[in-house]
This record gives sequence, C-alpha cells and structure tokens, in this order.
Amino acid sequence: MTRDEALALDAADALAPLREQFSLPPGLIYLDGNSLGVLPKATAARVQQVVQQEWGVDLIRSWNTAGWMDLPQRVGDKIARLVGAGPGELVVADSTSVNLFKVLSAALSMAQADTPKRKRIVSERSNFPTDLYIAESLARERGHELVLVDADELPAALDEHCAVLMLTHVNYRSGRMHDMAALSRMAADAGALTVWDLAHSAGAVPVDLHTDGADFAIGCGYKYLNGGPGAPAFVWAHPRHAERFWQPLAGWMGHVAPFEFSPGYRPAPGIARYLCGTPAVLSLAALECGVDTVLAAEPLGGMAALRRKSLALTRLFADQVQASCPSLTLVSPRDDAQRGSQVCLSHPQVAYPVVQALIGRSVIGDFRAGDTSHPAGAVDILRFGFTPLYLRFVDAWDAAEQLRQVLESGEWQRPEFNQRQAVT
Amino acid sequence: MTRDEALALDAADALAPLREQFSLPPGLIYLDGNSLGVLPKATAARVQQVVQQEWGVDLIRSWNTAGWMDLPQRVGDKIARLVGAGPGELVVADSTSVNLFKVLSAALSMAQADTPKRKRIVSERSNFPTDLYIAESLARERGHELVLVDADELPAALDEHCAVLMLTHVNYRSGRMHDMAALSRMAADAGALTVWDLAHSAGAVPVDLHTDGADFAIGCGYKYLNGGPGAPAFVWAHPRHAERFWQPLAGWMGHVAPFEFSPGYRPAPGIARYLCGTPAVLSLAALECGVDTVLAAEPLGGMAALRRKSLALTRLFADQVQASCPSLTLVSPRDDAQRGSQVCLSHPQVAYPVVQALIGRSVIGDFRAGDTSHPAGAVDILRFGFTPLYLRFVDAWDAAEQLRQVLESGEWQRPEFNQRQAVT
Repeated sequence: MTRDEALALDAADALAPLREQFSLPPGLIYLDGNSLGVLPKATAARVQQVVQQEWGVDLIRSWNTAGWMDLPQRVGDKIARLVGAGPGELVVADSTSVNLFKVLSAALSMAQADTPKRKRIVSERSNFPTDLYIAESLARERGHELVLVDADELPAALDEHCAVLMLTHVNYRSGRMHDMAALSRMAADAGALTVWDLAHSAGAVPVDLHTDGADFAIGCGYKYLNGGPGAPAFVWAHPRHAERFWQPLAGWMGHVAPFEFSPGYRPAPGIARYLCGTPAVLSLAALECGVDTVLAAEPLGGMAALRRKSLALTRLFADQVQASCPSLTLVSPRDDAQRGSQVCLSHPQVAYPVVQALIGRSVIGDFRAGDTSHPAGAVDILRFGFTPLYLRFVDAWDAAEQLRQVLESGEWQRPEFNQRQAVT
Repeated sequence: MTRDEALALDAADALAPLREQFSLPPGLIYLDGNSLGVLPKATAARVQQVVQQEWGVDLIRSWNTAGWMDLPQRVGDKIARLVGAGPGELVVADSTSVNLFKVLSAALSMAQADTPKRKRIVSERSNFPTDLYIAESLARERGHELVLVDADELPAALDEHCAVLMLTHVNYRSGRMHDMAALSRMAADAGALTVWDLAHSAGAVPVDLHTDGADFAIGCGYKYLNGGPGAPAFVWAHPRHAERFWQPLAGWMGHVAPFEFSPGYRPAPGIARYLCGTPAVLSLAALECGVDTVLAAEPLGGMAALRRKSLALTRLFADQVQASCPSLTLVSPRDDAQRGSQVCLSHPQVAYPVVQALIGRSVIGDFRAGDTSHPAGAVDILRFGFTPLYLRFVDAWDAAEQLRQVLESGEWQRPEFNQRQAVT
C-alpha cells in the first residue's frame, strides 16, 4: 500500500470525526492506547468542574446535589452498553486486580457450595501476571489449585475438577483473542463458572457478555476506555447470580443502606454490593468522559464499526511491517477473528532499543519482556495498540515506515535507547 | 465568651496564615472536614498539570518522567511524618476499607501462625461500620469470632483468646479518642496484635505509631488530609513485621518487579507489597496537595500546634453551645485527652432538621443517625468537625450562635429541613 492509499482510506472513513474528541499531541503517533488511552478534550474541563465547583464550592453537599453517590452506577451503566450487559448489572469500583479478587472469590465460593470436589482454577499460562497472582493467592488460601495451560489446551482442562475458568479475553502480550462464546459454553457444559478479564477488550472489540454466556467479568478504565492514568475499573456479574455472589471486601458503600451506619453487613441487591469503600470521585469523573468518547461511536455503528476499523488498521500495519521489516516476526494472529486491537512483533535481540528509538521518532508503542518461565513466551515483544477512535490509516502506515527506518538506519544502537527505564 | 474575644484569639493565632492555603467559599462555616476536607488552592492547578501535561502530552512516558510510579511511596512518606512513621514504611493505596482487609488478613495470619488457639478479633461496638463489616467477613471466612464491646470493656477483652485488637483511634460518632499507647501495650502484653484505623486522626491529632507500639495502621485521605472526594487511603505496617505480613490482594504493583511480568508472585520488600493494582494518579496527585497543607504547619509547630488549636476550637464551641442551647447534650468527651477534633451533640428528637437548618444558614455539620442496635448509641447525633488549618475561633463562635438561633427560632420545623436525603 502507498501512503496516498492510506490517506484515501482516511478520507473515506465515516469514523474519522471521532478523532476530534481527543487532545492528541501534534506530531505524535500513539500506539499505546492499550496501556494508557489518550486524553479526551472534555476531560480537563469536567475534572476542573468537579474540583472547583463540586468539591471546592459545594463540598460535602455534592454527594447529593452532584450525584457523586450514583457515579459508580451511572458510569457502570454506560460501560455496560459496550460489553453487552444490561443497566444495573455493572459498577465501577476499585482496580481491576481488586475486582478480580472479588469475583474470583465469589465464583470459588459458589462452585464450592455446588460441587465441593472441584478444586481447580484453570487459566492461560501467559495471562496477565496480576490475574495469576490474585488467583494463586486465593488458591493457596482456599486449598485450591491454579492450573495453567496454553490456549489450545484449555478445552481439555475443562473437566470435572475445574471450578472456575479465568481468562483475559484478549492476551496482553500476543493480542490473541479467545472465543468467549465457545469457551464459556465448554466451561458451562463441564459445570464450571467463567471469569473474564476485559482489560484489552472493553472499548476495543465487541463483547456480548449475555449472549456469550459469561458468569463474571472485570475490566480496566484506563486503556481503550480513555479514563486516565489509574482510572477505576469495572465489575459485572450475570444477573442470574445476583443474589448469590458474596463480596469478601464487605465495605460500607456496598451495604444496602450505607448511611444507616448499622453494625451488621447486609449487601446491597445485585452488583452494587461490589462497591466497597468511598469511590475516587475525581478519577471516576474523568473515566466517564473517556467512556463517553466510545459511546460517541454509537450513531456511527458503535462497537461493530469500531471493530471493522480496528481490524483494518492492524491489518494495514502488520502487512506493511511484514513487507518491509524482515527481521521482525508477527506474534499476534493474522486471522481477524483471533486478533484483538493490537499488533505484536518479536525481534530475537533488539526489541527494547527498537521500541525506544521509535519513541524517539514520536511513534509510541511499548516493550514487553519475554517470559523465560514459558518456552512459547520467552521472546521479547514490540507491542502496538490501535485505538480506532483516534488513529488514522495514515498513522498506521507512517508507524510501519518509521519502524522500517529505525531498523535499517541502526539508530536503535545508540546508548540512550539501550538504558532500561523503570516502566517499560 | 464574646465574639470580640473570639476575634482576639484569631488575631493572636500563629497558625492563622495556614487558612490562606484553602479555597473556602465566602460566608461558609465548614465544620465537616471530618467527612470531606476543604479544597486546597494548589490542587486545581496541580490536577490540571497532571491531566493536560502529564497525561495529555507526555502520556505513557509519565510513568517514568513524571514519577507516577513512585507516587504511592512519595505521598506515603509525607503522611508518615504526620503519624510517627518512618520513610518507606507507609504507602497510599486503594480505599480505607480495602486496606483494612489487607492488614487485618495479615494480622490474623500472623496470629494464627504464632498462636493458633487465638480466634478473636476484638473491637468497639460503635466502631465505624465498614471496619466491622470487613472484620465480620474475614472472621466468617476464617472461622474467627468478632467480639464487640464498649470502650471501657476493652481491657478485659484482651485475653488469651484475642488475636487482634482492631480500633478506630477517634470514634466517628462520638469523637472519643482511645489511648493508643495504653491499649497497644495492653494488647501486646496479652499477646495480641493491633490494627489502628486513623481515619479521624491523620492530620487532626498527633499520632506516634512507633512510640505508641502499634502493629498496623490504615487511614483516610479525604478527611483531615484534604485529599478530595474519595481520595485514596494509606496503609502502614511496623517495620518489625516487614518481611512477615502477607498481602491477600496480590496485585502486580506490589510485586518486587512489576515490569518483569513474571508469572509467580514475589512480594516487594516491606510496605510496597501493599500496593495492588495501578494507582489512581489523578486522585493521588490531589491527595498530595492536601497532605502538603498539613505539612505546611511543620515550621509553626506541626501536629502539636495544630492539636492545641483544635482543642481550643472544640472547647470554645462546646462551651458556647452548652451555655446557650439547653436542649442539646454534649456527647463528645469534655476531657481534652479523650477528645478528637470534633464536637458531637445529641438531641432526642430533632437532630436531623436542626443540622439541615444550620446548613441553610451556611454552617455545615452533619447528622449521624442513632444506632438502635446499641443502647448507648441509640441517640441521633449532630456532628461538627474542626479542622484547625482553616477554621478560625470566630467561626466556632458564630457556629454556636447560629445553632442557638436555629433552635430558638424553630426554623428547623420547616418541611424542607425534614426531608431525608440519600447522603446525610
């Protein structure tokens, strides 16, 4: 493809105006929205309103007058529309890790009550580490076992010992997307519950939790939802479990009547019990602005239209790189149905300095170190996330071209690109 | 006391300039800093800097360049100075409720390992509900027992069955302050560990965790630390436990090397393991501005000077109310040594509408419903928090005078003051 052909795709792109919602630094090609989404233009003013008017002037009264009390539900209802959940089924609370602890605890308790001999949490070996740490911690606490397998071994692991199948829908390293419907059905057929981490899915790929038969889900606010650094996370439980799931973090905001200050815990009905402490209002308000940028696509075809553009962007980038960068290997799936909204490449030696040199050229992707405990995952990764809300086809083309130039020029050999930083 | 005498106290107050740090709405007397502290003037600009420059322009690079990665420790080290903890011993993370879950889990596990027959968590019957809910939930999970007694029964409850003494240092309803040193010593003598909730202490009264022999502590960022609505909370563990305490919420930010993305959880040394998910950077940045307003008192005598002023303010208000409002009963202790930074009053019938009528006169306190499960706590409370950083003696005098006028005029009978709101 030529650059002019990429520009023509942008000219014909019905989603192109959505980019205007964002405050994009001039000249930057930002392919790291899967780590931290870009700042929406509306956010700065909204956060100032919360700080200066709602907090500064109205103070404590804003819990009533500014609707702070309902913010976790209000933003939750908006996210629900992006993941195939109903209103009142999803709330924003805490971090993804903490929410995983809640739903995995609940799922294990429910499995324990129904089928006490099931003692296994099954997950993918290359799942995001925090998910594995939380599962490992809960498994030890409860005398369960965390069983890690490769993606293609998952169906065989769904047997009479499996209590919970816990997966991240789109793998953070490889960008490979699981078939949520098929795996949820297999888990249900085997008598197991499913917990889905939507960190790299919400706002990036269509998710239909009801249709796909999920039991629990959690997700992240600061990646494709553009909620800002460390934005609070979300948590969903299928309404069929609404009165059954237990909240181990039994905090006052999840109580049926928080301002009764009654000494015994009575959980709020349904998902609201997954609230715990007082919500971080500033971060929640910023998250709402981010979610609104995704909802703005609804009149233009919503998540299905975003998905089509995302696949076209990642395909363009992968094709260009494969044609022009022979030293790089495509790690993410070529098959559209299996690819999330990112392209992962590997290089046997110099992935880290190449990513740094690209950043030096204002093309931001990130580096993920190889996982030496796992043969198939041992290779270092160059990771590029594509957010269709604000990326253009010409950005994908230019990024591939810059990558080619970095490799051919050898500029990645400069010392400043080879010094490791705390956060990679 | 006359109003002129109150004004004279302000004129002689060496701490008076600290008020200039805050953006106080004109004409408002804000006696609810124990629920939500006032906005510091520096916060709006700092939050804008984080949103527009660090997030908006520098994006993902800010984890390195803007020090986001160290923010939980940096703000933690500042709070440590206010509570008698050392650098590197305290971090900001999650909510107070979630942090209580962490430290109480750790304390119970340590007690279990040392003295398996100890099965009791001892606390105060009128402790803040969320603390009791978390303890109740953990007790059920682990086959422990939550034993609730009145404050004066605590010493007798510290026996060979007690694993953990869990207390809020200053009671949220009554404002009564426990003797941390004496109770910690009694607990230690009985072989039990202590968990102190500093929600109504940090920034309000001097706390010396080391000298007073505490084992674990948690606290709140949005009350006397002025961190903003739902600001993140903090958590401390005595360094003698540094390598022993376990983190049940084993998230990647508490891993010894988060960006290794290694599949097995290895906790960071010391308190850093109490981090879990990605910190809410916007809220954390705002909290730092709030903590700085308290640290600004250090050259003027620090927490000891703030405490002297706080006691003078609460004494003035309580004296004036007792002299002029015979229908109100003082619930908080008259004894300075037992009183936190708040004054609580009770009225047998009309506490709620009186608080609302006062708010109508721009004097903001709050209402806390009586706890009918507990004879001594059944009475409704009018609660007034005094933040010495921004309150003047004349504010305390005026607030008492407005309260007198509300009661004498009977304006609390108006219908609009008798409609209950969601948040009280």
